[in-house]
Amino acid sequence: MTESVPSHETSVRVRYAETDAMQVVYHANYFVWFEVGRCDLLRSLGQTYRTIEAAGLMLPVIEAQCDYRRSARYDDELTIHTSGKLLSSARIRFDYEVRRAKDTVVAIGRTVHAAVNRDGRPVRLPAAVREIFG
Amino acid sequence: MTESVPSHETSVRVRYAETDAMQVVYHANYFVWFEVGRCDLLRSLGQTYRTIEAAGLMLPVIEAQCDYRRSARYDDELTIHTSGKLLSSARIRFDYEVRRAKDTVVAIGRTVHAAVNRDGRPVRLPAAVREIFG
Amino acid sequence: MTESVPSHETSVRVRYAETDAMQVVYHANYFVWFEVGRCDLLRSLGQTYRTIEAAGLMLPVIEAQCDYRRSARYDDELTIHTSGKLLSSARIRFDYEVRRAKDTVVAIGRTVHAAVNRDGRPVRLPAAVREIFG
Amino acid sequence: MTESVPSHETSVRVRYAETDAMQVVYHANYFVWFEVGRCDLLRSLGQTYRTIEAAGLMLPVIEAQCDYRRSARYDDELTIHTSGKLLSSARIRFDYEVRRAKDTVVAIGRTVHAAVNRDGRPVRLPAAVREIFG
Repeated sequence: MTESVPSHETSVRVRYAETDAMQVVYHANYFVWFEVGRCDLLRSLGQTYRTIEAAGLMLPVIEAQCDYRRSARYDDELTIHTSGKLLSSARIRFDYEVRRAKDTVVAIGRTVHAAVNRDGRPVRLPAAVREIFG
Repeated sequence: MTESVPSHETSVRVRYAETDAMQVVYHANYFVWFEVGRCDLLRSLGQTYRTIEAAGLMLPVIEAQCDYRRSARYDDELTIHTSGKLLSSARIRFDYEVRRAKDTVVAIGRTVHAAVNRDGRPVRLPAAVREIFG
Repeated sequence: MTESVPSHETSVRVRYAETDAMQVVYHANYFVWFEVGRCDLLRSLGQTYRTIEAAGLMLPVIEAQCDYRRSARYDDELTIHTSGKLLSSARIRFDYEVRRAKDTVVAIGRTVHAAVNRDGRPVRLPAAVREIFG
Repeated sequence: MTESVPSHETSVRVRYAETDAMQVVYHANYFVWFEVGRCDLLRSLGQTYRTIEAAGLMLPVIEAQCDYRRSARYDDELTIHTSGKLLSSARIRFDYEVRRAKDTVVAIGRTVHAAVNRDGRPVRLPAAVREIFG
């Protein structure tokens, strides 16, 4: 994958709590891993979502999507490849690929986030975030 | 909304467990409510997902998507309007609209499910399900 | 059960999201149902946890305990019997019994809560709560 | 802490999904971290819960308890110190201490587990587990 957008890989191990009676990971939990992936991407770039919030900004998810290709099971070690791209000065999109071992793609997803202030009003993304992902 | 597809409305009250530090519902939890909505839709049509699984069939989610329009908060009473539509003899799609009070749309989503047997192999949906949603 | 303490019964249906790979409910989820039980108990007595928080008070859990007697499975309808009792002017204890059908006890638990203000400092429980559970 | 029982330390970083509207970790999620702690303890001793289950044995939680001393917040790095001790040939107890930084104790808990076979009948713990924790 050749890409010029900022990206990062992070690992998660499937918790028993994340499985369901089909004995695979419950589908909603992938969105939690996406959260782990994008927060680690931000951290790898010198930002943290914690400090963004401490500065009065929030980045709620306004769209989320996931294609499930394979099942993941308890104790599996998964890699989440996350990349980010500015959609506008106030919106950012993250793309995720969840893999088991090196090359089995388990799921592919995306989330779109809008920057809002504490009153929920749309605002510009922090300058540092706009520079990184612009 | 005029529609000829089978549909159903179900209610959920937001649990504290479902909120996050933004003091709104964590986005992944909408997919759990979608599960509640489609299982209640099946039940309203004389089927239950429990009996479908007991007969050896599973309907894993192969795609999930949600647009978030408004925040939902702790203790909010929400209505989930769910409708279903056959995509093929082996795939079914459900559409969801989450509303607060009568007319505030909180979120709109969809899930696509494939019928598989206990070995994970694709199979036809149960005849009863195909008749209802076909 | 003869009791003079305020109590209430509430129903939950097991969500697929709440099950795990053992094909029973994941144990941590009982604490979420306990939350549903105590909030419904408060509501049945004319209070809501939402209004308690809106008044600047929070009731974080300072102890939680559960004995698991039987498994609960997907789609089971469970009854949560909740009762509450003041431990001091600043602490309250809730007891829970989760049953399936009329008489199968699935789990028995308790939580203890301390009243704190927005700064996390201990304060007295609201007068209405102290009167009800005293 | 001088102890002769097998023990292990594992780290978790608080996910946004694990917080609630009080802007701290929702109490039930500590039991999920306890699961992470005891599975890592088993792994550190050459066992995995995955292989125990693959051999036909399960270790459901029959009791769970937690004392909450401090709040944990989004993005906090926590250490879970887990130790295990055989209660009988069929039961095992794990104790947990969750700390932030080196010395702030956030929570202290325990879980008790019974060994059962796939039919849910009580059986002896695997010999390797009995030897390690006996």
